[in-house]
Amino acid sequence: MPHVAELIAVGTELLLGSIANTDGQFLSQELSALGIAVYHHTVVGDNPGRLREAVELARSRADLIITTGGLGPTCDDLTKTVLAECFGKTLVYNEEAAQRMEAYLRRAGRAITPNNYQQAYLPEGCVPFQNDWGTAPGCGFEADEARVVMLPGPPSECQPMFRERAVPFLRDWTNGAIVSRTLHIFGMGESAVEDLLRDRMNSMVNPTLAPYAKEGEVELRLTARAENEAGARALVAPAEEELRGLLGELIYGVDGDNLEGVCLRLLKEQGLTLAAAESCTGGLMAKRITDLSGASAVFRGGVVSYWSEVKHSVLGVPQALLDTYGAVSEPVARAMAQGVRALTGADLGVSVTGVAGPDPDERGNPVGLVYVGLAWDGGDFVREVHATGPRGRIRQSAASHGFDLVRRRLTGLALEV
Amino acid sequence: MPHVAELIAVGTELLLGSIANTDGQFLSQELSALGIAVYHHTVVGDNPGRLREAVELARSRADLIITTGGLGPTCDDLTKTVLAECFGKTLVYNEEAAQRMEAYLRRAGRAITPNNYQQAYLPEGCVPFQNDWGTAPGCGFEADEARVVMLPGPPSECQPMFRERAVPFLRDWTNGAIVSRTLHIFGMGESAVEDLLRDRMNSMVNPTLAPYAKEGEVELRLTARAENEAGARALVAPAEEELRGLLGELIYGVDGDNLEGVCLRLLKEQGLTLAAAESCTGGLMAKRITDLSGASAVFRGGVVSYWSEVKHSVLGVPQALLDTYGAVSEPVARAMAQGVRALTGADLGVSVTGVAGPDPDERGNPVGLVYVGLAWDGGDFVREVHATGPRGRIRQSAASHGFDLVRRRLTGLALEV
Repeated sequence: MPHVAELIAVGTELLLGSIANTDGQFLSQELSALGIAVYHHTVVGDNPGRLREAVELARSRADLIITTGGLGPTCDDLTKTVLAECFGKTLVYNEEAAQRMEAYLRRAGRAITPNNYQQAYLPEGCVPFQNDWGTAPGCGFEADEARVVMLPGPPSECQPMFRERAVPFLRDWTNGAIVSRTLHIFGMGESAVEDLLRDRMNSMVNPTLAPYAKEGEVELRLTARAENEAGARALVAPAEEELRGLLGELIYGVDGDNLEGVCLRLLKEQGLTLAAAESCTGGLMAKRITDLSGASAVFRGGVVSYWSEVKHSVLGVPQALLDTYGAVSEPVARAMAQGVRALTGADLGVSVTGVAGPDPDERGNPVGLVYVGLAWDGGDFVREVHATGPRGRIRQSAASHGFDLVRRRLTGLALEV
Repeated sequence: MPHVAELIAVGTELLLGSIANTDGQFLSQELSALGIAVYHHTVVGDNPGRLREAVELARSRADLIITTGGLGPTCDDLTKTVLAECFGKTLVYNEEAAQRMEAYLRRAGRAITPNNYQQAYLPEGCVPFQNDWGTAPGCGFEADEARVVMLPGPPSECQPMFRERAVPFLRDWTNGAIVSRTLHIFGMGESAVEDLLRDRMNSMVNPTLAPYAKEGEVELRLTARAENEAGARALVAPAEEELRGLLGELIYGVDGDNLEGVCLRLLKEQGLTLAAAESCTGGLMAKRITDLSGASAVFRGGVVSYWSEVKHSVLGVPQALLDTYGAVSEPVARAMAQGVRALTGADLGVSVTGVAGPDPDERGNPVGLVYVGLAWDGGDFVREVHATGPRGRIRQSAASHGFDLVRRRLTGLALEV
């Protein structure tokens, strides 16, 4: 019998639509990977009666209840109080939770108020989930045939708390193994990928094959079930080989990889450094690579040349190029990449200039037209991109093309796609 | 008696976590604005039995049931079939729906398949919601004391279908109004805000007052109900005044505002320009302000000086300062802000240098120590920040402090918090 989880999100802000239930999405993905089925999500507000009803209903049809939210001081620890009541448990003071909360707030330079200590009370006999990413601890406990897991609501706390605390608590439930392998593709659209793989997607059973479109990229997920992990891996491997044969260099990474992470790894391996000159992406390439710890080993920095004056005065783009071709042009992208490379002393200079929208530029260049450049010792290259979608998506896509140029250069692939 | 809606989202892709229930968020916002309360969201998969149970439960506690999803040919029109059954209605062929679907597919250059015609069957006696944004029509009908609304799942169809089709269907229900007002606070933690306002939060009924923690900021939401919008606004206004009296300059904006948006507006109003010199935020300040269209009017650009060499060679930070105090220091933050201002010709130069983690820097500065600087014509200021949490949150918090300095300078407030 596979285990069945029910997710209960607690928070009036969800019912007012201030936020979407992204915890529900995250946990559904994770539980599915663990082989635990999810048949219901429920959202209730900060209301003890309705939470109690939701818990009773969940209890009748699932053997794992996971709550998100309602743990902080601002909601009087509603979830903890109600769940303890539903399962006949008293709340007891947890010294370690109190100390962690104190240390966390001290590091944050924030005052410790009496209601912070309220958070250190947890249901008797539970496994405390200490929270290294915020103040409210979570917990897990067993009751009757079921298990209960309580997680904080903010995704930046909920996600690590689930992976680092709840998954170990559920370890004995997840013996049979599911192995998923995600292949990341850049440079081919979702429908083209689907066209290419439709027959396989329909016919494959173990592993299954499913595509997901994501921020201008496509992911292909292979998922196999077997008695143990080695067995599941053995099912995934030949299918991955087959996909690599079909898609070749379009596959840039696997599992947790992203384009900037692949670039970071390649730069480190080859002892090279990078700098970025960004116009329409406005710092997004720099932001994305410096999201990764360890970026300082290879990323020297960059220039956000949002104004043409900055392209000229800081990056040294010749004024004649700007006047003749305009800021959104192949020659300017080339000069920006060369300029930032010279300015910073980096081995590779990457550049982006384009029209992110919502309006065309003053020369009438259409929204979505982007030039992405790369300069290296003795050469350079510019790719013309026609991105679609709203401003945010065009910027992400443009930045991804920049990283794709870097990755292709460092792996000896053709720079054109 | 206010009307109460329950949202039921149908789709196995939601339970697998492939997508988040953004329809639930959108509809919650819209219903709240219409004065219709939402107490529950439920998500079920493409499963008739579980959908039937969810509908029966919703019927017992809400007088408006809104379903999203499960209307297209790929799920055999599950939702329509189950809802018709639950409410004892037969499905009848709707000629107009069939014609619209044909016209839509013809425009899209897509083939019309027999199962497309299945979509033109709708519950007897319903108000058909013709779909100009996709193929599957929705509908609304009355049953007993309740109303039922069925909408397609893709947000690009669900949203216009709700506004253009469902809202007219509900017009006679939406006389009363709910008005919400959100105050954005920067510079005081969630628990401290809660401590300050606890009595009010517990005692206020109309409007209610609720705090939400969000990316290092706190939001306070006032929500009032009245017979009409003007009446609800009249209830919110004095409560807002009172909060402004208590929190003063910590309130930086309302409703859809964010810190960078407030800075953008102030800069525009005052005809000033900004440039950013970023080390540990790695382009995040630039990215955040250029996320906003219209940023080019005031944001000249910036330098991501991730390496100390770039701080010196591009921003002109004196090497002696870097050697004596290290890159993460008050003097360097000051010199970076001055440097980027001089380099770009901006009226204001903002800077960030700090330790985003996961490890302390080579001088032993702790993770989370950040110096945020501001330089203007004839002056400068540096704020020392102790941020907490994982790398991403420290970076967001550091960038927010940078924008807070800009906003305080432009509104004549003290720069220290």
